[in-house]
Amino acid sequence: MTSTAVSALIDGARGGDPRQVARLISRIEDGGAQARESLQALAPYAGRAHVIGVTGAPGVGKSTTTSALITALRSHGHRVAVLAVDPSSPFSGGALLGDRIRMQAHSGDDGVFIRSMASRGHLGGLAAATPRVIRVLDACDFDIVIIETVGVGQSEVEIASTADTCLVLLAPGMGDGVQAAKAGILEIGDVFVVNKADRDGADATARELRHMIDLGSWAGWTPPVLKAVAAQGTGIDEVVDAISAHQAWLAESGQARQRRLRRIRDEIIALVIGAARERLDIRRQELEALSVDVLEGRTDPFEAAARLE
Amino acid sequence: MTSTAVSALIDGARGGDPRQVARLISRIEDGGAQARESLQALAPYAGRAHVIGVTGAPGVGKSTTTSALITALRSHGHRVAVLAVDPSSPFSGGALLGDRIRMQAHSGDDGVFIRSMASRGHLGGLAAATPRVIRVLDACDFDIVIIETVGVGQSEVEIASTADTCLVLLAPGMGDGVQAAKAGILEIGDVFVVNKADRDGADATARELRHMIDLGSWAGWTPPVLKAVAAQGTGIDEVVDAISAHQAWLAESGQARQRRLRRIRDEIIALVIGAARERLDIRRQELEALSVDVLEGRTDPFEAAARLE
Repeated sequence: MTSTAVSALIDGARGGDPRQVARLISRIEDGGAQARESLQALAPYAGRAHVIGVTGAPGVGKSTTTSALITALRSHGHRVAVLAVDPSSPFSGGALLGDRIRMQAHSGDDGVFIRSMASRGHLGGLAAATPRVIRVLDACDFDIVIIETVGVGQSEVEIASTADTCLVLLAPGMGDGVQAAKAGILEIGDVFVVNKADRDGADATARELRHMIDLGSWAGWTPPVLKAVAAQGTGIDEVVDAISAHQAWLAESGQARQRRLRRIRDEIIALVIGAARERLDIRRQELEALSVDVLEGRTDPFEAAARLE
Repeated sequence: MTSTAVSALIDGARGGDPRQVARLISRIEDGGAQARESLQALAPYAGRAHVIGVTGAPGVGKSTTTSALITALRSHGHRVAVLAVDPSSPFSGGALLGDRIRMQAHSGDDGVFIRSMASRGHLGGLAAATPRVIRVLDACDFDIVIIETVGVGQSEVEIASTADTCLVLLAPGMGDGVQAAKAGILEIGDVFVVNKADRDGADATARELRHMIDLGSWAGWTPPVLKAVAAQGTGIDEVVDAISAHQAWLAESGQARQRRLRRIRDEIIALVIGAARERLDIRRQELEALSVDVLEGRTDPFEAAARLE
């Protein structure tokens, strides 16, 4: 693709054509010279989007909550993009029918852009690709970008925590606050939502969560604990209000800049690490031979690693 | 510590003293010259342990199942070590009271060794440290090593999948099989257990799971789906039998060697990546300055990463 084609693509994407946005994102996920060129061309337009992370254990209702948030944010006139970070599964092919149907409620709306990101195939991994894609969406005038991460694992938690505002969802009877603490998601939440709050145990889960939050020490912002029934849209306005309050606090406290810096720093680190992985990929045969040497006792992993550095 | 002290420590650990085993593991987690020396000294004794991964979403009963497995494996005369891979949380301090109490049932038994591994502070990260610690336990005559990983995230799933036999737990009403597929844990299981099978929906979850497994293509080993109530010890003998059957299949098919090789390869990769991270840590100030440059539009992340490689 020529530079002229890149600018045409950028013009189309900034003009609001969702297919052009999708094409631009694919180009940028791949990395390479065109990705750099596109990112540089987009740079003047970016820097205003507010990034919301939505995370929690499987089954707490992340997709439903995201869908309800889209509706509420649209009614405030925001343009909303969603990045769904799903581990790819050979069984499900990544996206599930139920979620697809739910998301189709927004499919006629040009102010909503939804993209599923697979876990693999990005230069520097998902952790590096996500901020790049956010920058594209930001430059295409989406003022809210929601990153929905499934699960509670280390890498997903890291992606969610690079958001400006991180929403942690729980559901009553899903193992409760103690399980959340165990999964390591308590410390990353800026706003906590006990979803499915019409179920038994919602008050207990909220209380337990507040108690655990009170045990922590918070500088300037203490995460609120809200209750919602996302499937019915109940409590979602309060969630949007809490996100706005957090956004205002970020701006006042200077934390907004800090979070942007952290996101950039993490992106650079992921690119450096990604390059190290690529160098290892090239030396795959040598790695296999050294692995056999370790298995058969001719060397040890430290020595093998030193030879590959 | 001198070489003589290292050999004394190894002798003590191999003699069955749990405190010496714990000290030896700490030494090896840290990396460095003594870690290498210890690993080399241990090499002749290792290579027999069977490694079992236990994973699943929070709340499915991983700790309870692990505890029941310990009891069953001990009754078969096995020496059992458990590595509990918990993300460290400032709220919980890593380990939770309930789990500690549960594990204390085995505390008087010298044939059981339990260690909680935090997510940070290992050279090359948890993915690199885990196989090293397994090798120590293996050399100290633990013939079964159980790795219990919390959550369903990418890194935890990778750790579980480096086991010889990977046990995936589900519970009815926890979001069921579809959620498991979404979380990406279906493809890593060698044995599936629907725990809390006395609850409503256990049969439906097992059926759905079997159906999803039937959709996959399996070479030589099709993962069985079992039901258990780990808290009462029900169904645990069948789980142990399935693990033994899988172990036999691994040996016959040559997969045992392949899995060991994969574990070694992953450990080497993690060490190389860990070294790249360490080099970045040393250049932390430069990284921070480059991040500000990206934020303020003077450079882009690709250029910044290239300067740090």
